[in-house]
Amino acid sequence: MATYLPLFGVLALVVTFLRYRWVGKQDPGDERMRRIASYISEGAMAFLKSEYKVLAIFVVVVAALLAVTARDSDSHSLIALSFVAGAASSGLAGFIGMRAATLANVRATQAAKTGLGEALKVAFAGGGVMGLSVVGLGVFGLSGLFSLYLNIFGAEDAIQLRRVVAILTGFSFGASLIALFARVGGGIYTKAADVGADLVGKVEAGIPEDHPLNPASIADNVGDNVGDVAGMGADLFESFVGAIIGAMALGAAFLGIAEFNGHFDGMGAALLPLAIAALGIVVSIIGTYFVRVREGGNPQTALNVGEFVSAGMMVVALYFLVDWMLPEKWLYIDQLYTDAAGNPIIREMTSLGVFFCGVVGVASGGLIGLFTEYYTGKGRGPVKRLAGHSVGGAATNLIGGLGLGMVSTVAPIVIIAAAIMLSFKFGALYGIAIAAVSMLSTLGIQLAVDAYGPISDNAGGIAEMAGLPPEVRERTDKLDAVGNTTAAIGKGFAIGSAALTGLALFGAYMTAANIKVIDISKAHVMAGLFLGGVTPLLFSALAMMAVNRAAYSMIDEVRRQFRENKFLKAALDAMRRNDDKPREEWSEEDKRAMDEADGKAEYGHCVKISTNSAIREMAAPGVIAIATPILTGFIGGAEMLGGMICGVTVVAVLMAIFQSNAGGAWDNAKKMVEEGVNIKGILYERGSEAHKAAVVGDTVGDPFKDTSGPSLNILLKLMSIVGLVIAPVIA
Amino acid sequence: MATYLPLFGVLALVVTFLRYRWVGKQDPGDERMRRIASYISEGAMAFLKSEYKVLAIFVVVVAALLAVTARDSDSHSLIALSFVAGAASSGLAGFIGMRAATLANVRATQAAKTGLGEALKVAFAGGGVMGLSVVGLGVFGLSGLFSLYLNIFGAEDAIQLRRVVAILTGFSFGASLIALFARVGGGIYTKAADVGADLVGKVEAGIPEDHPLNPASIADNVGDNVGDVAGMGADLFESFVGAIIGAMALGAAFLGIAEFNGHFDGMGAALLPLAIAALGIVVSIIGTYFVRVREGGNPQTALNVGEFVSAGMMVVALYFLVDWMLPEKWLYIDQLYTDAAGNPIIREMTSLGVFFCGVVGVASGGLIGLFTEYYTGKGRGPVKRLAGHSVGGAATNLIGGLGLGMVSTVAPIVIIAAAIMLSFKFGALYGIAIAAVSMLSTLGIQLAVDAYGPISDNAGGIAEMAGLPPEVRERTDKLDAVGNTTAAIGKGFAIGSAALTGLALFGAYMTAANIKVIDISKAHVMAGLFLGGVTPLLFSALAMMAVNRAAYSMIDEVRRQFRENKFLKAALDAMRRNDDKPREEWSEEDKRAMDEADGKAEYGHCVKISTNSAIREMAAPGVIAIATPILTGFIGGAEMLGGMICGVTVVAVLMAIFQSNAGGAWDNAKKMVEEGVNIKGILYERGSEAHKAAVVGDTVGDPFKDTSGPSLNILLKLMSIVGLVIAPVIA
Repeated sequence: MATYLPLFGVLALVVTFLRYRWVGKQDPGDERMRRIASYISEGAMAFLKSEYKVLAIFVVVVAALLAVTARDSDSHSLIALSFVAGAASSGLAGFIGMRAATLANVRATQAAKTGLGEALKVAFAGGGVMGLSVVGLGVFGLSGLFSLYLNIFGAEDAIQLRRVVAILTGFSFGASLIALFARVGGGIYTKAADVGADLVGKVEAGIPEDHPLNPASIADNVGDNVGDVAGMGADLFESFVGAIIGAMALGAAFLGIAEFNGHFDGMGAALLPLAIAALGIVVSIIGTYFVRVREGGNPQTALNVGEFVSAGMMVVALYFLVDWMLPEKWLYIDQLYTDAAGNPIIREMTSLGVFFCGVVGVASGGLIGLFTEYYTGKGRGPVKRLAGHSVGGAATNLIGGLGLGMVSTVAPIVIIAAAIMLSFKFGALYGIAIAAVSMLSTLGIQLAVDAYGPISDNAGGIAEMAGLPPEVRERTDKLDAVGNTTAAIGKGFAIGSAALTGLALFGAYMTAANIKVIDISKAHVMAGLFLGGVTPLLFSALAMMAVNRAAYSMIDEVRRQFRENKFLKAALDAMRRNDDKPREEWSEEDKRAMDEADGKAEYGHCVKISTNSAIREMAAPGVIAIATPILTGFIGGAEMLGGMICGVTVVAVLMAIFQSNAGGAWDNAKKMVEEGVNIKGILYERGSEAHKAAVVGDTVGDPFKDTSGPSLNILLKLMSIVGLVIAPVIA
Repeated sequence: MATYLPLFGVLALVVTFLRYRWVGKQDPGDERMRRIASYISEGAMAFLKSEYKVLAIFVVVVAALLAVTARDSDSHSLIALSFVAGAASSGLAGFIGMRAATLANVRATQAAKTGLGEALKVAFAGGGVMGLSVVGLGVFGLSGLFSLYLNIFGAEDAIQLRRVVAILTGFSFGASLIALFARVGGGIYTKAADVGADLVGKVEAGIPEDHPLNPASIADNVGDNVGDVAGMGADLFESFVGAIIGAMALGAAFLGIAEFNGHFDGMGAALLPLAIAALGIVVSIIGTYFVRVREGGNPQTALNVGEFVSAGMMVVALYFLVDWMLPEKWLYIDQLYTDAAGNPIIREMTSLGVFFCGVVGVASGGLIGLFTEYYTGKGRGPVKRLAGHSVGGAATNLIGGLGLGMVSTVAPIVIIAAAIMLSFKFGALYGIAIAAVSMLSTLGIQLAVDAYGPISDNAGGIAEMAGLPPEVRERTDKLDAVGNTTAAIGKGFAIGSAALTGLALFGAYMTAANIKVIDISKAHVMAGLFLGGVTPLLFSALAMMAVNRAAYSMIDEVRRQFRENKFLKAALDAMRRNDDKPREEWSEEDKRAMDEADGKAEYGHCVKISTNSAIREMAAPGVIAIATPILTGFIGGAEMLGGMICGVTVVAVLMAIFQSNAGGAWDNAKKMVEEGVNIKGILYERGSEAHKAAVVGDTVGDPFKDTSGPSLNILLKLMSIVGLVIAPVIA
């Protein structure tokens, strides 16, 4: 069976290619739109090039270290091949996704001239390229390498199969490493540009967002692509691969039972996670055909239909898949748990139980998404109250947002705790891992929906910069608003699956390090727990301070251009003189000043500043994520490292939910105030003091939700994976 | 020996009484100062009365439940007596401290007319009353009850001694319960008043802080007493008692070894924590005589000398005490740990090792304090940079402060992790507990230094409201500024000891619940860890949202008075007309308006709003802290509860450091901007945009550092204590 699975990856890549070509054939609009779009796409590619150069060095160094250290261990130098393949696939997925996004943005703008449905179609197709390339490369890479290693090492007994999976772990390590850098680097890039563009452009100079006179506007739009598209793509590629690997490692442990009740060879359990992912590709492709909207219709409904249809089909298909791949019932000697007398526990496992774990995964992912939507959705109670808090000023808005973010962690954590206990009951640690894989099984369409958000955002930016009629911007805004909510739900899935995957990897780590118990009452485990717990805070702090530093460079540069570039200066003066007057009433001289300034802003400088800052600042957090577990493992031992992995898992999940939701809520609260919100009979809107307060909240929330928050998911898995990779050495 | 220990408590209480009388004999100033002081003291007492009424109901209900449920368990209904005694002592310590503080504040103002040294003497004596009453009541209560229970139940064998200590646990439970309510209630009170007074008074109406025309000014000063004095007193009483009980419970476990190597009866180990605390009383009293400052001298140095002399004496005394009470060497069958074969581990313990643990405690407390001072101290690098961030606006100031708070957790956590591992190495779990007790051993003087801060703050407020000459305010400000730093260091000790005490209680819990291993790789333990980890976030969110709600009520009330009270309205108009002009140049009419308005602000209304809000809002967080571990323990079992206690310990410590330090840094960054800060050649000072941004940061930091942050220490111990109390039932 293993040999057929890569075909599903190929299927996804073929559809990716067809969609990419279709997007490319759409009308890219007039010369001005194309010029703006080319600035964005060139900026994005320039960043990716600089980033990948640095990452290549990291990859080569780590691969060499892996090859050398793994040589004499239980593992094998081939782990370095897996590592490079994982890193390359992750980079490739980001590259393809971003190419498609920068192709689709201007075409979605052009389509928005015709209608909402047309614009959605282009933007969603652009997102779909990203979604399918991620799952395609994941399934192709994993199953291809798996088949290769099976051929080399065989899978006659448990030891051989475990070895194969251990070597495969490198793939996940490579994906996580690239994802961490891409998320952090992209997050710093996008937020530095965003904060810089907003603070100097919007607040100081008083020009609208995405205005062509703002030198940071192109960098801001590039940021959406490198942060929200490439960064997110790498992030979810990592989640997807990590969940599958964790489940395969635990599934491989079943092979030992062949000796115990001969009728089941265990390979089915190891392959099931890959098969679920492969099935998810088919389901996702079908699901995308359900996403359509007519003019006047609600794009949210269209996307929801697509996602729910896919999830429903997945559950049904999962039942038959599990039934086919696993025996109805088998006994399993649990290697990790012993009874009071120290003897291993024998568990009765059933295929129905494993299926339930999958349902638990899909359902809990959806539930977390719903709660995320509740806490961060525009017009829902919490965000409405937060918008109300902005009336008291920036301070009450901030206290309210921080409180909201904290309280919003409760429901997801209760759901995660319940999912852990339920899936463990039905399928032990393997069940938890299957829940994580199932949660991400329809990633193909989830990610299409996610990536469609920044594409619509960019489409709006291009409409603004190209001076297109307001109804175009209105249509893209409508698509973009929906994008915020779907992004929130997507983050819910990412976080939920990260928690479960973290546990699966933790179990795999214990097996690999050959420890049966990690007792928290031992001092070194407790110390590890504390040290692991503090890592996400250190990591978040570095990311946030990096954004602050980069934003300052951007602010200085924009101010410099406004001061030194005589065209920009003249145009800004003209704008100030005419304030809100329509252009027809302006003096000829002022009109000329505006026309002359067009395209004179030195966008390239701002793009360079964001690029350089992001590249420079992404190193420290990345090094910490790799070095901390290695140092702890070699100095403190395997149990202390176990405590550390556990600490980072719990705290990173908490902080990720807190930061993402607080940031999302501040963003939407600001949007509510901009649209006008009625509090105790008084209307507050754009330009009011309440609006200024809401903007402060949104700006604080930006690095929360787009830089540090989403990186934490990756951090916890990267640290777990590093632990898993070094486990045979420190054991 | 147990019978002599209460005498040390009595000694502290006698000194408390003498100092209290001395403070009372000082000159309380003119009629106007006395009137203002009486408003504050009446407001504070009114709050305490309302609060204690509600708490009395809680105490009676919990005591009844305890008496009933403990009747049939290993424990005994007398645990309810311990509980009531602990609750009452905590309440009494808060009451005495607050009486002394409201007596000392106006007398310190009066003394400040003469000189800095005189003012320090009065303020420090007032703080000393609080410090000594806390340690006195703690040692008296614990040792008195311990002697009583020894007489009733005997201590012939390990089972009897453990039972005595288990019954004594109720004392700590009572203290924690009251402390949680006092911290949360007091914190909500003080921050609602502070935010309300600042936002409407300072920002909207433009009148200075502590101005008599501001109706919330009295409530603001009352808040300093109920939050920073009574709340902190109850908090540290709880820490002190909790650390001692945790160590006694673990020390009692040594009794079993009498059967093993006959020459040591184990009682010494159980009594050592109490003896350390008793010795600390003597050392603290001596230390206070080293605190003196001359005019022009630095009060910080004076306080540092007092604290360092005490710490130094303590270390020396500790050596002889440990040497006297413990045998040089003994073997100990560790009940908690087993070797790979499942047999208990036999550890060699030495008195020198236990002494080292004490040194580790004192040193790590001091180190954490130094790092706290580094991250939050005025003029130090981090706060200077944060002040610089306010130039970019409120958003960059906030991002910077959040980043600073997060990164400031790293050093304390590394120190705590090292302290855990070192003290475990030298003295097993008992060693960790002894480290915690030693860290707090000089609490008598630490708390005197802590409580002197709000007294100086109040003294300044009274000087302002009574219209005293500026040099008086300058002197009190000088004292107050030092108070901010000492408070930060005090918080460092509180957090460090909380982490270690939490672990000691955790060990005691495991012994009591009769579990040998809490394995994090088990699903229900992991679920418990997640649920425990989310509790501090829920708790913080509730506290912060309560402050927001209460502040809004306060804002509405102050606005109402400014609108409806004709005297205030006329005076505010007069102030606005004359802006910065000295009073001599005002028109007669305007002067009359000011004079007529004097005392017309309805302070009582604001005091009532803060009181009612605090009482109403403190219930929910308190109930959560008690109910969560009980539900988890009875539904999920002892191991899941163990995971939960562990999760809450790690996350609460992290969040407490993060919140306290971020809040402290924002406060001092604001003060730096107010005094004028030079950034890239430009001077920013009071009234600048940078100042406004810094004020926003300070306001956000207020509930962080004074409401939710410090409550988290108590939360983690209260949950551990609840676990410890119910352990025999769920075991």
